[in-house]
This record gives sequence, C-alpha cells and structure tokens, in this order.
Amino acid sequence: MLLESLRAEVLEANLELVRRGLVLYTFGNASGVDREQGLVVIKPSGVDYDQLRPEHMVVTDLHGKIVEGDLKPSSDLDTHTLLYREFPTIGAVVHTHSEYATAWAQAGLDIPALGTTHADYFYGPIPCTAPLTDEAIQGNYVHETGLAIVKRFRANPSASTIHAPTIADATHAASSGGPMSPDPSTFAIEPLAVPACLVAGHAPFAWGRTPHEAAHNAVVLEYIARLAFTTVTLQAEAGVSQTLLDRHYFRKHGAKATYGQSK
Amino acid sequence: MLLESLRAEVLEANLELVRRGLVLYTFGNASGVDREQGLVVIKPSGVDYDQLRPEHMVVTDLHGKIVEGDLKPSSDLDTHTLLYREFPTIGAVVHTHSEYATAWAQAGLDIPALGTTHADYFYGPIPCTAPLTDEAIQGNYVHETGLAIVKRFRANPSASTIHAPTIADATHAASSGGPMSPDPSTFAIEPLAVPACLVAGHAPFAWGRTPHEAAHNAVVLEYIARLAFTTVTLQAEAGVSQTLLDRHYFRKHGAKATYGQSK
Amino acid sequence: MLLESLRAEVLEANLELVRRGLVLYTFGNASGVDREQGLVVIKPSGVDYDQLRPEHMVVTDLHGKIVEGDLKPSSDLDTHTLLYREFPTIGAVVHTHSEYATAWAQAGLDIPALGTTHADYFYGPIPCTAPLTDEAIQGNYVHETGLAIVKRFRANPSASTIHAPTIADATHAASSGGPMSPDPSTFAIEPLAVPACLVAGHAPFAWGRTPHEAAHNAVVLEYIARLAFTTVTLQAEAGVSQTLLDRHYFRKHGAKATYGQSK
Amino acid sequence: MLLESLRAEVLEANLELVRRGLVLYTFGNASGVDREQGLVVIKPSGVDYDQLRPEHMVVTDLHGKIVEGDLKPSSDLDTHTLLYREFPTIGAVVHTHSEYATAWAQAGLDIPALGTTHADYFYGPIPCTAPLTDEAIQGNYVHETGLAIVKRFRANPSASTIHAPTIADATHAASSGGPMSPDPSTFAIEPLAVPACLVAGHAPFAWGRTPHEAAHNAVVLEYIARLAFTTVTLQAEAGVSQTLLDRHYFRKHGAKATYGQSK
Repeated sequence: MLLESLRAEVLEANLELVRRGLVLYTFGNASGVDREQGLVVIKPSGVDYDQLRPEHMVVTDLHGKIVEGDLKPSSDLDTHTLLYREFPTIGAVVHTHSEYATAWAQAGLDIPALGTTHADYFYGPIPCTAPLTDEAIQGNYVHETGLAIVKRFRANPSASTIHAPTIADATHAASSGGPMSPDPSTFAIEPLAVPACLVAGHAPFAWGRTPHEAAHNAVVLEYIARLAFTTVTLQAEAGVSQTLLDRHYFRKHGAKATYGQSK
Repeated sequence: MLLESLRAEVLEANLELVRRGLVLYTFGNASGVDREQGLVVIKPSGVDYDQLRPEHMVVTDLHGKIVEGDLKPSSDLDTHTLLYREFPTIGAVVHTHSEYATAWAQAGLDIPALGTTHADYFYGPIPCTAPLTDEAIQGNYVHETGLAIVKRFRANPSASTIHAPTIADATHAASSGGPMSPDPSTFAIEPLAVPACLVAGHAPFAWGRTPHEAAHNAVVLEYIARLAFTTVTLQAEAGVSQTLLDRHYFRKHGAKATYGQSK
Repeated sequence: MLLESLRAEVLEANLELVRRGLVLYTFGNASGVDREQGLVVIKPSGVDYDQLRPEHMVVTDLHGKIVEGDLKPSSDLDTHTLLYREFPTIGAVVHTHSEYATAWAQAGLDIPALGTTHADYFYGPIPCTAPLTDEAIQGNYVHETGLAIVKRFRANPSASTIHAPTIADATHAASSGGPMSPDPSTFAIEPLAVPACLVAGHAPFAWGRTPHEAAHNAVVLEYIARLAFTTVTLQAEAGVSQTLLDRHYFRKHGAKATYGQSK
Repeated sequence: MLLESLRAEVLEANLELVRRGLVLYTFGNASGVDREQGLVVIKPSGVDYDQLRPEHMVVTDLHGKIVEGDLKPSSDLDTHTLLYREFPTIGAVVHTHSEYATAWAQAGLDIPALGTTHADYFYGPIPCTAPLTDEAIQGNYVHETGLAIVKRFRANPSASTIHAPTIADATHAASSGGPMSPDPSTFAIEPLAVPACLVAGHAPFAWGRTPHEAAHNAVVLEYIARLAFTTVTLQAEAGVSQTLLDRHYFRKHGAKATYGQSK
C-alpha cells in the first residue's frame, strides 16, 4: 500500500475535524501530498467518519488521476489538487462547512483580523473569493473553486497566470516529483502566512505543511470566525493596529519565533 | 406485530433527533409509512425517548385510525397522515422544535438559500407557511397544520385542491394500498426537492423517502437554519446565484448526481 | 429525618438543573414544600452539586426558620418562602442564572410569547419584574425579590395586599398547616399558568406543583428564552395570534388536555 | 522540587480552564505566586494540556528569571510577573482567549455590570485597556501588556508611577520575600474587587488569591461576557442600579458576607 504513513496522517486529520465539531455527517474532507512522489492522499466521498480506515484513503496524482484505491475520492478532489499545484509550500488541504466560517463565506465577507488570536495563526484577513461566474459554475466547477481561491492569493490574479491542468503538467509533475508552481514571490498573500480561504457562498478551505497543521488551522479558523462574528456584532468598527498583528504573528512564525518549546 | 422493520427504523429516527440535540424532553416525533399496506408507524405521545421500544410505536391507517398499539399516538399524527396522503413520494415525516429552525418559524420567515450547504439538500428556500387563521386553529388544528404546509407546496394552493379527509378516501387507501395524491406535476415545490417546511409561529416539519433520510434532513435543516441566522446577521443582503444552487443540488440529486459511492 | 421523600425530589431537581446546563458552579437552587406540614426543603448555600446528598438539604418552616439541618440554607430562601406563602398552588421553586433567561432579565424585558413551544408551557409572556427600589434592595432584599415577583402576578399589585412576614403568620402556618394565601382569583396572572418570572437585573425563578415540574419548567424557560432571542434578532416585530397560543396551552393543560398518555 | 503544592494547584487551575471550555489547544496559561519565597510557578509554553504534569511547571523569581524547570515558561510570563509585583494582594493569574471575553476585548469595550451574576464576582465593569502604542508593542511587549492592565487599575495611572523591572527590584524581592507594590490605596479599582481585565485587541487576564480562585474567576468572566453580549443585543440601554450591584457584591465579599457555609 502506497504512502502508509501519509494515509494515517490524513485519516487522523479527518477525525480531528469531527472531534472538534467542524463537520456534520460527511461535510468535510482532508488530504495530504507527498511532494517527492507527486501523489495526493484524500478521503473517499461520502463515507461515514467512524468507518474510515487508512486503506479507504484514495491516492491520486497531482491532477486527480487515481493511482490506488477502490473508492471514489472526495468530490472536492480537483480543488485540492489545484491548490497543491499552485501553492508549492503547502502539504495538506482541509475542507469543512464549519458553522461560523461558512456563515462568513455565505455573507461573502473576508474575516477581518480583529485581534491576537487571529494574528497568532493568520497574517491578515482571511480572504473570501469573488462569487464564481455562471460559466465557472457550469464548467469545471470544482477546479474553478480552486482557481477562485488562487486568484485571491496571486499578486496579479489574471486567469492566464494560473496553470490550467494539462497533460504536460501532469507528466512534468510525475517525472520531476517537484512542485509546478510559479515563483512564490508572485503571491500577494503568501499561502502559508494566511493558510485558509473562504469560498463565497460555499465554505472554507484551510491548509498547512502537514495534515495535522491543516486540520489545526481549520479548527482555529472556526474559532476566529466565531470571535469575529461576536466582535463585529458588539462593535461594527472594531479593529487593531498592524503593529499588534505583526507582533503576534512573528512571535509564532519565522526565524524570530519565540513561542513553544521547539526554538 | 405489524411492520417490525419499519417500527425499528422509526424508533431509530426518533433517537437520531435526540442524539443530534434537536429535541428537548419529548418535543419531537418521527413516523414512517408503508405505502403498500397503507399503514403509518408513529411515536407515541409524550413518552421519554430513553424508554422508547419498537413495540411502543403506534400503527395507524392513512387517516389516523389506530390499527395496532396500546399507547396514544403523537398528538401531531393528523399532520403526518395528511402529508402522507398529499405528498405521494415521501416515506417518513419528522417534527421537532429544533432551536434555530423554530426561531425562523417564529419569525414567520422562509429560510433563504444562502449557500451550498443548503443547496446540497434543499432546492430553494425552506418555505414558511402563512399563519393559520383563527378558524383553522379552532377547528381541526393538527390537520390544518398539515394543510398549511401542503398549500405552500401546491402549484395552485386553493383549499379546494387539497383532499379533505373523508371516509371514501380512507376506504380507498385501505383497499388500494396506494397513494391518494394528485398528480405530482401540480406541485410548485416538489416535496422531495425541498423536504422540509416551517409552520409559522410553531416549528419545522421535515420528511424524506425513509425515516433515516427524514431525520437526516431535519438535522441538516437545523444546521442551515443556524448558518442562515449568522449569515443574515453579518450581511442582511447575502445571497448566491441560482446557478451555484443548481450546481450543488444536482451534484447530489437526480440522474447526474456524482457525490458519494453509490452512483 | 424529616421529609425523606421530598428531600430526594428536591435534590433530584437541583441535579436536573446541572445536567441541563442551567447552572454554573453553585449558581442555582431548588426547594419544595410540604403543604400539610408547612415545611420547606431547600438546597444548602454554596455547596458543590456533586457533593449534595439528601441529608444536606435544609428544612425550614414557611418563614424560613430552620427546623432541621446543620448547613445554612440557600441565601435565596426568603424568596422561596414568600412564593410559597403567596402562591398557594405551587409545590416547588427553582432559581437559576441560566444564560438566556438571565439575559432577558438583565435587559429588563418580558419574554414575549412567540410560538407554540412557549404556549405549550406558559400561558402568556414570562413577566419581568420592575427594578427593585433602593429602599427594597437595602432593606430585606431577598424577601423584596419575592415581593417584586408577586406584584407582577397580582390583580391589584399594591404593596399592602401582600403579606409581610409576621410572627402571627408563622404561627398560623405552623398551626393550620395550610396555605396562607389570599383568594387565587385576585391573580392577574395565575402562577401555575405562567410558572416563571424574571427578576429585573437579576435572573429567573420558576416553579411548579412538584420539584420535578419546577426544574422542567426552568429548563423549558431557558429554551424559550433562546428561541425568543433568535426570533427577535431575525424579526423584531415577530408575534403570533392569541388563538394559537390558547390552542397549544389548552392542548397540554386543563380539563380538555389531549397531550401525553395520562388523560 | 520547589513548591510542590503550588505546582499542583497551578496545574489544576490550568486543567479547570480546559474542562470549562475556556481554552482551545494551548491558548491559555495559569500561574501562582509564593509570596514568602518570592517565587512564581507557571505553565510551560505550548505544551498540550493532557501531557502536563506538576514537574513540567516552571519556577521563576518575580522578574521571570528561571529558578527551576527544563521547559520554557509561558510566553506571557512577563505579564504575570508584573501583575504579581504591582498587585500585592493577588496570588494567582490566569490568561485565556475564552470566546466571549475575547470578543469584548477585540471590540475594545469594558464589560458593563448588567446584573447580579456580574456583581456577585466583580465590583464594577470589567475594564478594557487602552490599545497599546506602537512603541509598547515593538518594545518589551509582554511587559507592556501588564503595564496596560495596571494603568486601568491605578488611581493616577501615569507611566512613572508603575515600577519598571530593575535589578534592584529583583534583589529587593529576593531578599525581602515580600511584595514590592505601592500602597494599595492608590488603586482606582482594587484588583481583588475586579479580578479581571480585558487587554484591547487581545484577550482577558483574570486573577485571585489562589490558582483555584483565579481559574474560577476566569470561568465566571466568560459567563458574564456571554450574558452581557446577549443582554446588549436585546437592549442596548440595559443597566442596573449601583445599589443592586453593591448589595450582591457585599453579599459575597467582605466582612458582612452572608453567602456559602464559611461565615
């Protein structure tokens, strides 16, 4: 069985979403990528969480072609694979319909950075995509969902700068084993600095370097979505200084991080 | 004992409502119908959920006449049986006073379709009935509650198009064993496409093809009622395109459904 | 030990409040009355719920004089005893700081009757008292809290119509064993028809014929307080017809009640 | 091992925060002080709560110099130690990002005293600090967080009246073992009368005479933050008389307290 360890991590991330109350029934999925092999491990579609076993996970290539597995992969697979192709630094993706993050997505609003809880994990607002056009929805919808996310993170988010999935790409990915993404310097928002996005009218996606981290980010996203809802209900004009957000973000991230036991 | 398997399914649906936090004390009930035999299995009235056993379920005909059972059926029986007579495609009905769905019902508002979570289960807003007239309330109230629901789903919701329960109907149902409903093409809202309705000033009813599905729909209804409350509080003008709602609904329903393992 | 059975019922009512999430730490108390003996059984003050045993309950007379028990009674005792003296039909009183009912009390607002869940238990709005005057607060405060409740239920709520606790009353109560209340026909709101009241700036009291029923009413009160909060947030002008409220209330109460198995 | 009993109390306070739902992952910390020895016991940084053992606690002096312990102390240590130096009557400090208290902090608003639940624990509004200046944030940020709190409690909150941490102070504290605080009569708000503060844009700190009491205060703070949110949403102008707040506060605190079994 391919990627035994990653299968276990992806399963565990799916279960963490359940334990933390982020998914109702089967409304969620997590995946992880092995960058060296260019393979994605993802939850199967519509299977009850309490029956999930590592061997149920589906393995695909970076364009969603099934490499191993008897079950159908999550119906959101094409969003996951697009994010892996376009965000070369991420190692896992999580999708939920968690309550408050989904409400912000339905409202079509970015979640503003209103305090240090937010800044400890996300460097700036959680962006909400533009609504998808009718063409995008009626076309390759799941892929387009990923494109809408990527556009919010690009410096110059014109459609042409985003890789359409091609056979050449797939071949390249399979042969080189490496990410196919453009220069990260072209991001207006660095994906690991703001490891989540709301899809307008739909729900959040979150990511991270590992399945554990992606699930953790999804849990924190839901928490800050709750905090922000209550905050703006109390005080529509709430806000904090960029200096405070910087201080907290860089306390936990980057070369000068001081939080925790590992540095 | 009649309908042993359906009794177990109806009991399980009642218990699912409790497990998911949709009922406080005995504020809820579920039933199922056997279309071939023209018999309904329903929870007894006011019995604690933790004491419910399959043999406590009450069996009635499609007009509420008790066929088997020592306990009184749920006081909402006449609403259940009317829905079975009028909505020929449904196989189970669930009634709860779940918190957010009930609040929308008390507000007298349809729950708008604000995102994909809604569209995955319900094709369009969850309708709220008109307030019942004093005559309806003082008359055959539980039956009238069902009528108010049916009127919201009818193409031409004049009272005369709805079957009043008559001896002839009962006889017909008993002898033919089949549904007595009019042509489904007369529905403005297809009952299985929007498998729930709010009764103004009261609470929700949900339904489905099976007791399991009806309970599942009631749980999802409560979740989307929560999402919609938070969404409209954040953004009174929230809304999404019909194209997006169509895409999600038909991803899970109908001949072209792609979600889950079964297609 | 006096009143062994009532002690167990009062303890169980206290524990039900905890199980249903109505009390944080020791913010609540329940009592019951034995009308024949003119004795009240009440929770001791500030004892952890998980250590409570029937023998910890305190027995007092109807004016709060301790008859049996080593612990101090709940600091709200004088409110309980006043309610027993003034509301002759009630058999138990419960006090909590449950979240939403307390918020309505802090807002100084009656909880409006917005639907059938409310009407199934409470015949009309849950009244909120007037704010206590400085004199009342600085005087016999706990007793005055009870007076403020009673005033909301009286037909002619002038202070002089309410019994001040006197030695004569106590003697009378002890010797006659019966209630000392005026004619129940003088109530503008019948205490068992609306078995709860909010004390402005403070929190709710609920009651019933038995400790079980009083606790049950407190739990339902919290639920309808939540429903009403969400409803008025969605729709400030929400309301239902008196006819509907009547129908539901009398479905569960009075000579023509049809709900449950017992009639 | 130093301070074995205080380590256990501090651990237990940390765990109480988890049990009561006040911390997500590792978003919280508690500490206690031994005034005689001038030593602080604090949770280590970023360690999972379910792995915490008394021996993991870190012991520092009153200026944060580690005296015993292999792990890094909580990154909020300098706030804790400043509070111990400046508030001579407190024995423990707790920091959380509990949901509603944090939302009030993010809104930059004091939590108003809207009822008796509040007044039973806090004598007046829970103050929210001024936003920290950019200089403070970019300087000794964690220390400045403590200063912002202290300023809200001072009678004359000019920066110069607050002790900057100096070697001399540390020496003094170590040699005398006693508090180094100025005359408590200089407080505009007595720290044990309002044992919590919101840090604007950040989250709450709470304290008490013991770790148990500090955690208890943090739990009650979250509860009153929830109550106040719901109350002001219902009624923006809600308020109660000072007389009522006085009555409840002094019922539980001070020489004339009557609540509970201990007086």
